[in-house]
Amino acid sequence: MADVISTNPETGEHRSLGFEEDGDAEVVAATEMAAAALDDYASRSLNWRAGLLRTIAEELESDAANLVELAISETALPTTRLEGELRRTAFQLRFFADVVSDGTFLDATIDHATDSPMGPLPDLRRMRSPIGVVGVFGSSNFPFAFSVPGGDTASALAAGCPVVIKAHPAHPATSAATFEALERAARRCEAPKGTVNLIFGLEAGTALVDAPQTSAIGFTGSVGAGLALWERANDRSVPIPFFGELGSANPLVVTESAAAERAAEIGSSLAGSMTLGVGQFCTKPGLVFVPGGEDGDALVAATVESLSALGPFTMLTSSIADHFRRGTEAIAAISDVRPLVQHDPGSDAHASAQLYEVDAARFVGRDAYALREECFGPSALIVRYHSKDELRDALLASEPALTFSIFGVDNDRDGRWLLELGARRSGRVIVNGFPTGVGVSWSMQHGGPWPSTTSSASTSVGAAAVERWLRPVTFQSVPDDLLPPALQEGNPLSIPRRVDGVVHYER
Amino acid sequence: MADVISTNPETGEHRSLGFEEDGDAEVVAATEMAAAALDDYASRSLNWRAGLLRTIAEELESDAANLVELAISETALPTTRLEGELRRTAFQLRFFADVVSDGTFLDATIDHATDSPMGPLPDLRRMRSPIGVVGVFGSSNFPFAFSVPGGDTASALAAGCPVVIKAHPAHPATSAATFEALERAARRCEAPKGTVNLIFGLEAGTALVDAPQTSAIGFTGSVGAGLALWERANDRSVPIPFFGELGSANPLVVTESAAAERAAEIGSSLAGSMTLGVGQFCTKPGLVFVPGGEDGDALVAATVESLSALGPFTMLTSSIADHFRRGTEAIAAISDVRPLVQHDPGSDAHASAQLYEVDAARFVGRDAYALREECFGPSALIVRYHSKDELRDALLASEPALTFSIFGVDNDRDGRWLLELGARRSGRVIVNGFPTGVGVSWSMQHGGPWPSTTSSASTSVGAAAVERWLRPVTFQSVPDDLLPPALQEGNPLSIPRRVDGVVHYER
Repeated sequence: MADVISTNPETGEHRSLGFEEDGDAEVVAATEMAAAALDDYASRSLNWRAGLLRTIAEELESDAANLVELAISETALPTTRLEGELRRTAFQLRFFADVVSDGTFLDATIDHATDSPMGPLPDLRRMRSPIGVVGVFGSSNFPFAFSVPGGDTASALAAGCPVVIKAHPAHPATSAATFEALERAARRCEAPKGTVNLIFGLEAGTALVDAPQTSAIGFTGSVGAGLALWERANDRSVPIPFFGELGSANPLVVTESAAAERAAEIGSSLAGSMTLGVGQFCTKPGLVFVPGGEDGDALVAATVESLSALGPFTMLTSSIADHFRRGTEAIAAISDVRPLVQHDPGSDAHASAQLYEVDAARFVGRDAYALREECFGPSALIVRYHSKDELRDALLASEPALTFSIFGVDNDRDGRWLLELGARRSGRVIVNGFPTGVGVSWSMQHGGPWPSTTSSASTSVGAAAVERWLRPVTFQSVPDDLLPPALQEGNPLSIPRRVDGVVHYER
Repeated sequence: MADVISTNPETGEHRSLGFEEDGDAEVVAATEMAAAALDDYASRSLNWRAGLLRTIAEELESDAANLVELAISETALPTTRLEGELRRTAFQLRFFADVVSDGTFLDATIDHATDSPMGPLPDLRRMRSPIGVVGVFGSSNFPFAFSVPGGDTASALAAGCPVVIKAHPAHPATSAATFEALERAARRCEAPKGTVNLIFGLEAGTALVDAPQTSAIGFTGSVGAGLALWERANDRSVPIPFFGELGSANPLVVTESAAAERAAEIGSSLAGSMTLGVGQFCTKPGLVFVPGGEDGDALVAATVESLSALGPFTMLTSSIADHFRRGTEAIAAISDVRPLVQHDPGSDAHASAQLYEVDAARFVGRDAYALREECFGPSALIVRYHSKDELRDALLASEPALTFSIFGVDNDRDGRWLLELGARRSGRVIVNGFPTGVGVSWSMQHGGPWPSTTSSASTSVGAAAVERWLRPVTFQSVPDDLLPPALQEGNPLSIPRRVDGVVHYER
């Protein structure tokens, strides 16, 4: 196999990490190691599991300077952003430790034997159990928070599932170093051998989806790669759930009243949101619906002005920069599209901010699909609308998305229908804010209808992310001492449970 | 299109119902009607929705005599069974009304704006929302409880989703009459036009999966038909979740100590469970693992004796009877299989109980796949094991299943490993009981790992069945009066909610 190579996108330098990509046999062996760890790992106490997650957070923090430096050399992202992302990653691990300790995620439910109109019902006790070995595909754009030590890994470990993580080729050295933090934590906590595993290489990724011991996949990345792997997961002799978070164009609507009230503020903030992380966010606002007329003109002018002060930027990889170039060229090639900001980035590895404008009537055209697709990078398309009907038609022509943002004002008559449309066509509706921050919390939803996510009922951020890795099992008439502790009569884990229809939350 | 025909399996008589099967255009129209009802239906109050479900139960009960008579004429099932099933169906509708009123299923979660290690977090509020129009495929074997007014319909209506139901061709008259009860209830409650819809015909089924307005499918039926439709759901330009409950062989293990203690009791009860509903249950115990030796012999002898007093039976359709005949022939054709009960049913539409026996060492053979498959009808295969290793190998060779039953005795040393293996390979583990009753309750799980279910994280019976038809949406910084009532600050629905990490259950 080929050596694993780390590339500095800023300088173009390559260096070998001194080991090879993994072949099928290594991947199968890793999943078998993980499967062998499953029963032991899954049966550890909730407190122990929470402790492992907290220890991983500590180990990441103790190596923070080195990790950030490595990540800078592989992503060209700024220091403050990467420091913040590492903080978020540690916070996320501790948050999932809290979710584990809380115990609600087990959904423990007990119905004692009783009579019913259908005759006697036996003692029935249901809980969620770990689904098995989870395969995790690290993303390109978040070397910590959505990669080796990221949300998929943290939530799978929280659920009681060993993980086999496929490193993203854009940051193999960061992946290896963050994996060492996972391994140190696993050793300190005496986790079963095989609880965490790391593999490298494109072929290793497909082998991970194919491996008989893989029970589910978490993926963050492009629509193309995601759908190819999703099909592969379905083509197995035993198909497995594939949770793909694939990104989207993230519509953002500015109402007429909002444009009238604060065109300049919204316009300049938009420039910041669409170029955050060089626009390499799955939540980047890519489609901005702005009213025609002077207020809208003023908003667009403010965006143009703010963008002019920015860039050029180094993108994560030359391949991503290539894609961005081709994507913006496809937009520019569509007739009636007006380029507003279109600087020359100066080099192939770089990108400059791009802003285009089109009328809503043109946006809905059959031949204008490129306008409605996600374009990953620092670009946006302004869609100018001249009536509510035009706006609605344009919104319905865009694809369902991860997020849907509305800038309006108090008592805005337009608020309600836009909220309803946004809730129907996205996973998160935002009022007077930009979609680019995805807070880790109990109530975050990061996942929307197809094609933004392969499973719209799931989230890859927030407490509910753990639900992806669980499968319910009911125990009927099982003697108390043979039941899992979560379902034993005395509630030894002190977790919230529904008993005979009534939830007992208090400890 | 062809006329819809009702067939009496007992007499073989056919009669036309006087209307035609539905073509693509009618199915698309039905899903569009349902989609047009969605916003209105989904926004009705929880109390109203619970009231609709209770009214459907009343309307079914008020027509019970007629419905049971129709079902007898189309299924040849006994009166008491069908009366019980209708009672169960009404109970299930009222149970889902309770689930709706309880409100926990909305998973309402609120995080007020706060500071975090990653900086300020906005106000975030998450809840589950109706997924859209649900397509329901009625089953052959339960003309009420898993058909037009069954669990999929009840749980979808509970979730806030309009339904388009495809009637099973084995009982079209029963389907039409139960649908009238749904329609009467919808009228009494002034439900939006298009909330409930019924379609007929094989082509209508595929059109229902293909229709752009269909958002999810609930299916109960055979592996062949289920997997074909599952593939179709994935092949759409916008794939949709397909919840297929496909049945399984349902292993049942008798430990040596249990066989020593009560061979006769277990053996004769097995005869009852495997022939209940003419063995036409997806939970029929099809694989029975019995120890070698005298105690096992006594158990098998008791089953043989009890079976001899039963049948022949009329199966639901001549096609199901055909399948059963071919399935048992395939078992009998495998070398070293010993037929124990193999009466001639006397006619093509009938079936008699069939019991076969094989040694565990033979059961695991590569050429013996037919032994391990589900055989839908009144048959079972006794697998004789002579050691723990033989038993384990045989259990691992069988496919994951809906249920896994263990007959043991107190302090049985074999209990724990069998329970763990069963929990890993099924959705419900049963101790000292038969799997054929599937109680409607908060803690039922009816769904297991592939291939018994296409989505092992879901259940088609019990409170959690409603989760299949929901998709989470987060509202960020949305003004209180524009939020869905479930998420408004004052909790106008009085539902349990997690607020800033703490669950407030009390009303």
